[in-house]
Amino acid sequence: MGETVIAEMTWEQADKRMKEARAVILPLGSLEQHGYHMSLDTDNIVGGYVGRVLAERTNCAVLPVVPYGQVWSAKDFPATISLRERTFIELVKDIVISLEHKGVRNVILFASHWGNTAPVKIAARELLDEQGYSNVYYLSYMDLKKHGDGIMETELWNGSGFHAGEIETSIVLHIKPESVDMERAVCEYPQAPGDVNLRPIPWINFCKSGIFGDAAKATAWKGEKFLKNWIDDMVRLIEENIS
Amino acid sequence: MGETVIAEMTWEQADKRMKEARAVILPLGSLEQHGYHMSLDTDNIVGGYVGRVLAERTNCAVLPVVPYGQVWSAKDFPATISLRERTFIELVKDIVISLEHKGVRNVILFASHWGNTAPVKIAARELLDEQGYSNVYYLSYMDLKKHGDGIMETELWNGSGFHAGEIETSIVLHIKPESVDMERAVCEYPQAPGDVNLRPIPWINFCKSGIFGDAAKATAWKGEKFLKNWIDDMVRLIEENIS
Amino acid sequence: MGETVIAEMTWEQADKRMKEARAVILPLGSLEQHGYHMSLDTDNIVGGYVGRVLAERTNCAVLPVVPYGQVWSAKDFPATISLRERTFIELVKDIVISLEHKGVRNVILFASHWGNTAPVKIAARELLDEQGYSNVYYLSYMDLKKHGDGIMETELWNGSGFHAGEIETSIVLHIKPESVDMERAVCEYPQAPGDVNLRPIPWINFCKSGIFGDAAKATAWKGEKFLKNWIDDMVRLIEENIS
Amino acid sequence: MGETVIAEMTWEQADKRMKEARAVILPLGSLEQHGYHMSLDTDNIVGGYVGRVLAERTNCAVLPVVPYGQVWSAKDFPATISLRERTFIELVKDIVISLEHKGVRNVILFASHWGNTAPVKIAARELLDEQGYSNVYYLSYMDLKKHGDGIMETELWNGSGFHAGEIETSIVLHIKPESVDMERAVCEYPQAPGDVNLRPIPWINFCKSGIFGDAAKATAWKGEKFLKNWIDDMVRLIEENIS
Amino acid sequence: MGETVIAEMTWEQADKRMKEARAVILPLGSLEQHGYHMSLDTDNIVGGYVGRVLAERTNCAVLPVVPYGQVWSAKDFPATISLRERTFIELVKDIVISLEHKGVRNVILFASHWGNTAPVKIAARELLDEQGYSNVYYLSYMDLKKHGDGIMETELWNGSGFHAGEIETSIVLHIKPESVDMERAVCEYPQAPGDVNLRPIPWINFCKSGIFGDAAKATAWKGEKFLKNWIDDMVRLIEENIS
Amino acid sequence: MGETVIAEMTWEQADKRMKEARAVILPLGSLEQHGYHMSLDTDNIVGGYVGRVLAERTNCAVLPVVPYGQVWSAKDFPATISLRERTFIELVKDIVISLEHKGVRNVILFASHWGNTAPVKIAARELLDEQGYSNVYYLSYMDLKKHGDGIMETELWNGSGFHAGEIETSIVLHIKPESVDMERAVCEYPQAPGDVNLRPIPWINFCKSGIFGDAAKATAWKGEKFLKNWIDDMVRLIEENIS
Repeated sequence: MGETVIAEMTWEQADKRMKEARAVILPLGSLEQHGYHMSLDTDNIVGGYVGRVLAERTNCAVLPVVPYGQVWSAKDFPATISLRERTFIELVKDIVISLEHKGVRNVILFASHWGNTAPVKIAARELLDEQGYSNVYYLSYMDLKKHGDGIMETELWNGSGFHAGEIETSIVLHIKPESVDMERAVCEYPQAPGDVNLRPIPWINFCKSGIFGDAAKATAWKGEKFLKNWIDDMVRLIEENIS
Repeated sequence: MGETVIAEMTWEQADKRMKEARAVILPLGSLEQHGYHMSLDTDNIVGGYVGRVLAERTNCAVLPVVPYGQVWSAKDFPATISLRERTFIELVKDIVISLEHKGVRNVILFASHWGNTAPVKIAARELLDEQGYSNVYYLSYMDLKKHGDGIMETELWNGSGFHAGEIETSIVLHIKPESVDMERAVCEYPQAPGDVNLRPIPWINFCKSGIFGDAAKATAWKGEKFLKNWIDDMVRLIEENIS
Repeated sequence: MGETVIAEMTWEQADKRMKEARAVILPLGSLEQHGYHMSLDTDNIVGGYVGRVLAERTNCAVLPVVPYGQVWSAKDFPATISLRERTFIELVKDIVISLEHKGVRNVILFASHWGNTAPVKIAARELLDEQGYSNVYYLSYMDLKKHGDGIMETELWNGSGFHAGEIETSIVLHIKPESVDMERAVCEYPQAPGDVNLRPIPWINFCKSGIFGDAAKATAWKGEKFLKNWIDDMVRLIEENIS
Repeated sequence: MGETVIAEMTWEQADKRMKEARAVILPLGSLEQHGYHMSLDTDNIVGGYVGRVLAERTNCAVLPVVPYGQVWSAKDFPATISLRERTFIELVKDIVISLEHKGVRNVILFASHWGNTAPVKIAARELLDEQGYSNVYYLSYMDLKKHGDGIMETELWNGSGFHAGEIETSIVLHIKPESVDMERAVCEYPQAPGDVNLRPIPWINFCKSGIFGDAAKATAWKGEKFLKNWIDDMVRLIEENIS
Repeated sequence: MGETVIAEMTWEQADKRMKEARAVILPLGSLEQHGYHMSLDTDNIVGGYVGRVLAERTNCAVLPVVPYGQVWSAKDFPATISLRERTFIELVKDIVISLEHKGVRNVILFASHWGNTAPVKIAARELLDEQGYSNVYYLSYMDLKKHGDGIMETELWNGSGFHAGEIETSIVLHIKPESVDMERAVCEYPQAPGDVNLRPIPWINFCKSGIFGDAAKATAWKGEKFLKNWIDDMVRLIEENIS
Repeated sequence: MGETVIAEMTWEQADKRMKEARAVILPLGSLEQHGYHMSLDTDNIVGGYVGRVLAERTNCAVLPVVPYGQVWSAKDFPATISLRERTFIELVKDIVISLEHKGVRNVILFASHWGNTAPVKIAARELLDEQGYSNVYYLSYMDLKKHGDGIMETELWNGSGFHAGEIETSIVLHIKPESVDMERAVCEYPQAPGDVNLRPIPWINFCKSGIFGDAAKATAWKGEKFLKNWIDDMVRLIEENIS
């Protein structure tokens, strides 16, 4: 792992590695409810794991996961911490600006939490507009239809929701099973309020467990397969586009 | 550890624990150079370890370390990431505001990186002035004279500096020895510029290794003793003042 | 129209109408390139027209279109004006705050320009968090797959792009044909850069005309049909959810 | 009008025109009470009309009116929308910055609403200081003493006030008579509080109709004459000073 | 003077006095060029003197002059210090907020520098809107036509300019003659650029001495008379309107 | 004093002097409680006096004292005015930016009020980072242990506190005795709350007089001696490091 994890290097080692690596990957997680059965740091577990694997496979280096994110939808659940949109964007921008001063070739912002996806794009736009950085990339969050085809057995909630459900649970069962208590993995397809797409409605208003889907259908095997599809896809995107 | 590490709990467990615990501790680290011999995440290692021990001993709970900090002095060293003062303050404030909405009894901001100490106090003042929170505490960073008496063999640099030197290295030797390469632990007492206290001067201008003191004098034994003094002192402060 | 267009009323008339109406609709347009064949105010034409029809059909009142928007993607085309994300959000928030002080029952933010969609949602979230307003709604921009089924003959660009193409052109042919010069309506399916979803890339970098799709296939009939589907759908959403 | 109204052009036409025109004019209006007898968009009607005539007579081009402004004094009247000073300034600055990137020769900020006058000057100063733009002009709002000499029959309120009174009403009678209901045009010279020049006092505190002066004395003829004087004066200023 | 100058009191004395006094006066000056013959602190001299006299005559108390102001027009002259508009406004607001927490009856913002006049009004508006303070007053700067009638012998520059000219010089000759060197008091009526009212133009671009008018015509007698008129007028305004 | 006090010069004199002087000194005071016996402007008296003496002895020039500061700890005492941290920093930065445009050789920020010390350093850092100014210096506030050795008879409060006590009172007895009423100079060593170093606690919560120490032990002789030590030390620092 000597070539991958920046945090474990001395500054001399990291200096050399940051300049050689195809890109430096910054995983962006959260401390967010993940149902009755998964730990609050689920997005950080996934961000740390996937970030490291991506780095190993594409000659990149990986930074420590930012463990707090923009968690608007779930912010009123107990124990969930949310940063304001602007705070999160400034945090990401400051880290990228530091990195650019170190001579990195590229930066990849990897949102392992859905809510970070949109502000990460705003950050990248502002870094381009204000600083002229055209080497700041972002990876889209998992695409359940694309990467879960033939794996996922249950339906997406309301056509797109999947938080803490079959696939996310499967992923954690594969990479850190001790963070999942399958005995408490339930199925909840909450009744969506009619105006769910018309105004901002915190999940707590209509969802009991924090799960959107059927977590009980999760298996480590599904997690392994899904991760392979997702990571292979991101590896391809990186290799074809970032140099 | 079920009663201590919030990130490893489900939201139901954390909800219960956050409300019962004397306080929730937020360790605030950095990704910063620590000489030729220690890894960049030294402050995060210390923050995570000390935060957890403090929590265990004082009936507190601990949050994930914020792994990026205000690192002005070292910011021009390779591989060192620094947040602007204001970004760091807003980040801390957002996390505290989320916590207060969850019904925590108290919050303890624990800066395991020196540069975070001053902005943490500003954050606490602003949280009091703007939000009326009078239950936000901060723990001072290690006091080498007080906690190192009879342990530390070497001099402080310029009367107060100790970054990556005898004691910090000793601490990591005790809690995570694989993060130290003692073969590269050197002694540097850089010549302080005459105006070092008169204007902001980045360390890179006058320090070669990033070390202030004699890292080669570090031992795991010293780290263990120092940590005991430091942690005992903080435990006492918490028990006597926070309830 | 006496019951619909706020701007044409005196303050006494508007006062009465604002309090009676189901909601006040704020159309949010832009001054943006729309190919070789359509005028820069296309989004304002659509916003004004659709906003007024919606208001008439749902017992709402409509405000003047904001004629400048967040136009990041097209901002480097000649003659295109773009507001920064934050400026646009503050503008929307100030208008809503004024409206809430007037005793309106509800506010509907209607983005008639795609780039306004995301910042409008951020504005609504901030208005909820900061001001406690839970009566601020937004209408999603046109959904070409849903509302264009059986009408649209050409493909979406890259799976989702349609700017200034078959349907937008058809809509303007129906509601303001003098703003379209079909002789200059061309077909362009620009080659998408491989990293188009990986980093912010201004359209000017890869698109010549500013059109994504085949504008030459537009007809007023298609515009009429599409508009009917789209507006019917929004009328239903308003009637079922906002009162 | 093909050479004047930017919004009605394609981007290719506007590109050519923006670069050739002496200046691009940005009218800045408001949605503000104008008495019992005039519509809320009075300042937008005037801004659009005068902006267009000025453009035609001086080889300029004109942008869409910004229909919301800084309306502090009248902001507590029903149906009146006000932007905060800073929001309005940032909005103007963003539009100008976009324009400057398009290669315009000059920009003229034309406040057709009195409250916009001061923030427009601040915007121009900041654009000079921060961006170095020395080609951003502003036109003063109507000067009733200067342009109304021999036309205006009534007194200014408190030495300077005229909102929705004889002259403004006359102007709208000339350019859009259907926006005036002369049956409801009253005369009000509200009693000025003694401290009206000593602290900020919203008009609603002391004015009933929203009118300052005698709207009943308005005639289309006066509007035509006044407009001629005002516009001739501005044409002269533009021709003599902006190139 | 024990009842007037807050700065010279202990906190106990000031506490009592602040609560009893009709108002607390905050003079707002500048460090700005005042021609070849007057010192840079002219506005502070005038602010301190007039503020104290006003306080003595109206049962007010006076605070220390803020000696730096918004000096946009003169900011490019040597030795002139200018605050940005927003900095100046925040400074004034912070001081007023502190005062309101102390139980003052009223606050009077007294701009003894012209450039402070407009931002002071913005500050007062924001204090009303944001904090609900309706007891924050401002005094208009000297009105040369009104208070100089029968005293001033020379013309205003361009109809309104008078900086460092006959009257300002006369005032300082009366209250602090050692700050004036009449041997260097010249007459300059700079040629106003044609666009002086159309865009922001720093004075340095067209004025050599920094004087607008004829400083050589100044006498202490004129200063005394003018001051009497000006102060009497302000005393009357305070007594009639502030209690 | 013609070579020292900028405010008393004309712009021509100041222009010459600002460019010749080793540095321009900006004293930063406050309006803050100083016990029952000293006036609120104590820090301004000290700042003005020491600033001027320093300037005379080191070929510097001195600016007017900023008479309002960041006074967080004492802000809840009557009559004490406090600026927010950010306001104070922006104020200092604006003044320095103006000075740098005038061609000064160096700037010295001299905090004559303790609470200004930390924000002054932040300002200097930001001026270096954002503007590239490496010639902005700050002088540390008085060091009672170092400069009071052999002079100070009483103990520091809680190891470091001294506000309005023996030494500050002695200094003012020496430089402006009429600002001290020794009859009301008391001794108070308030009981420090146990958590005084753990969270922000306004002084008013535990201190009655506002004094930390024994003001009754003050003498003019001690003030003279202390000042000599302090000023000599600062003179040496300036001469050795700033050119």
